[in-house]
Amino acid sequence: MYRIPFEELHRQLTAVLARLGFARDRAELCALLFAETTRDGVYTHGVARLPRFVAMIRNGNVDVAAEPQLVTRFGAIERWDGRRGPGNLNALFCMGRAMELGREHGVSCVALGNTNHWMRGGTYGWQAAEAGLVGICWTNTLPNLPPWGGVDPVIGNNPLVVSVPRASGPVVLDMAMSQFSYGALESYRRRGEPLPIPGGFDAEGKLTRDAAAIEATQRPLPTGYWKGSGLSMVLDMVGAMTGFGLATFQLGKDPLQESRTSQVFVVIDPKAFGDAARQAEIVDGIVESVQRCTPAEEGRPVRYPGEKTLATREENMRLGVPVAEELWAEIVAMGGA
Amino acid sequence: MYRIPFEELHRQLTAVLARLGFARDRAELCALLFAETTRDGVYTHGVARLPRFVAMIRNGNVDVAAEPQLVTRFGAIERWDGRRGPGNLNALFCMGRAMELGREHGVSCVALGNTNHWMRGGTYGWQAAEAGLVGICWTNTLPNLPPWGGVDPVIGNNPLVVSVPRASGPVVLDMAMSQFSYGALESYRRRGEPLPIPGGFDAEGKLTRDAAAIEATQRPLPTGYWKGSGLSMVLDMVGAMTGFGLATFQLGKDPLQESRTSQVFVVIDPKAFGDAARQAEIVDGIVESVQRCTPAEEGRPVRYPGEKTLATREENMRLGVPVAEELWAEIVAMGGA
Repeated sequence: MYRIPFEELHRQLTAVLARLGFARDRAELCALLFAETTRDGVYTHGVARLPRFVAMIRNGNVDVAAEPQLVTRFGAIERWDGRRGPGNLNALFCMGRAMELGREHGVSCVALGNTNHWMRGGTYGWQAAEAGLVGICWTNTLPNLPPWGGVDPVIGNNPLVVSVPRASGPVVLDMAMSQFSYGALESYRRRGEPLPIPGGFDAEGKLTRDAAAIEATQRPLPTGYWKGSGLSMVLDMVGAMTGFGLATFQLGKDPLQESRTSQVFVVIDPKAFGDAARQAEIVDGIVESVQRCTPAEEGRPVRYPGEKTLATREENMRLGVPVAEELWAEIVAMGGA
Repeated sequence: MYRIPFEELHRQLTAVLARLGFARDRAELCALLFAETTRDGVYTHGVARLPRFVAMIRNGNVDVAAEPQLVTRFGAIERWDGRRGPGNLNALFCMGRAMELGREHGVSCVALGNTNHWMRGGTYGWQAAEAGLVGICWTNTLPNLPPWGGVDPVIGNNPLVVSVPRASGPVVLDMAMSQFSYGALESYRRRGEPLPIPGGFDAEGKLTRDAAAIEATQRPLPTGYWKGSGLSMVLDMVGAMTGFGLATFQLGKDPLQESRTSQVFVVIDPKAFGDAARQAEIVDGIVESVQRCTPAEEGRPVRYPGEKTLATREENMRLGVPVAEELWAEIVAMGGA
């Protein structure tokens, strides 16, 4: 694992994207989102995703030049066609629109269809919260998860993001509807460790902590069993019926063809509801009540969602951003710098 | 268990509430919400809750005459003070306001503070979906759940409701942030059955399917472990910072004192986004894709959230609504009819 200075990582990623046909400013912004995700410690959804992203540019699913196009506007809502542009740029743009509309109307909803993988969902939660707004957004995905009571993967792990502004560090929840991603299962298997909790079914249909057994059956568990299974369905419905991209069942099972997905961005402006000082006290009070909770394991205090991020960010800015050696070599070769 | 004709149940409940000081029209409406919840098969949150509701009228936490009062209005949002009125009437009213604002602006957000237990959250999801609207609402609760990684109950099981309109039966998700409620644990213990999945921690801090062991430790599991734990926190934050009711940590642990809670009602009007016929196709397509999934157990098809409700409703309208004999005697005595 290399530790690459953040600016160097950003520069190299920008060069890669520029060579793939991105306009200069879009290459810089798209590269920044990849670099920031890894810098913030979400290693599965940052630069590690670049090779798949590049493959989807090359196979025609991601159109590097496409910008979202307004389809409908009414009151506090807008619907945009993502035109199969880069998923992170489309999502950043639509959360930006939702933020403008949210400030204007107190609440807003922007739906986005025909887009691509947004990479780290938390990015758009941070975007809203750092501007003092509550952000709620989600995406559908390809069918990668059996619903509760079923064995075929017909629902998506449809991540849901909810973020809350807070002066000393936003609270950002970014949760997928599978208890463990395939990436997480793989990493437990490689380390030879059992999952900390049951994560899916084995060949006998029994709940198991054996990651390899779950990879074999392709039956990971929905978050909260029947609950995450149901939540995945309604998020898919609201996404596809407002964004008019594909629904999960219309997407194939090949991740390299996961394109034309549907996303929703809701923003609530707390300032519209009342006194900001009291709101800050409420949020800090909730954080402190959680931090005061007796830990189940001594020395491991209870955390709020997103709590680790700022410390990881600081460390990676100081020491350099961790990038696997092979991946770094690939990036440098692709950038041709 | 008696089977009480729905109209008879409604009449008796109305009589009880009228004797407790409700104005006639409010008694009828409040009674209807209790009766409909039991009729729809949500037995834990319907007439079975009446004794606690009555106790909270008598101890002064529920003011039968209080109606919500507008505090702030801006664009597509409103904030209402529930003035400790009956929780179901307050919530029904605020979802109604969110529906009006949602039709006007495409999306809306109504926050409600100082309210009481809304009984069945799904009620307000059905309310929106039956009017052709997407409803998203949640409430905070008293601290009844240890967060992931902690042992003290400092977070609430904060139910979240998401509903989607559908001609042949709305899709209504109504999920609390604890995997099993205390009511569910009690019912497994009484039947002497193990939970179908681990539901909390035993005295050794190990995950267990033994309901009695979890009741003893008071450590039920958040829905999806760390995920539902985090979702509970952000729902509490957004609720308390927009509704300006109490946050979970400000509520005591006595259910008879669970008053002045905070709720949020978001409505999205699908018609604002595009063609209704295509939207209906999308939602039906998602439902059918789930129903086509191979069941894990033969003969037990995968269901969508709320699927059982219409059949249960029909059966209970036909055969009468199940009410425990002692409870029915109590209702009749209180109604004095």
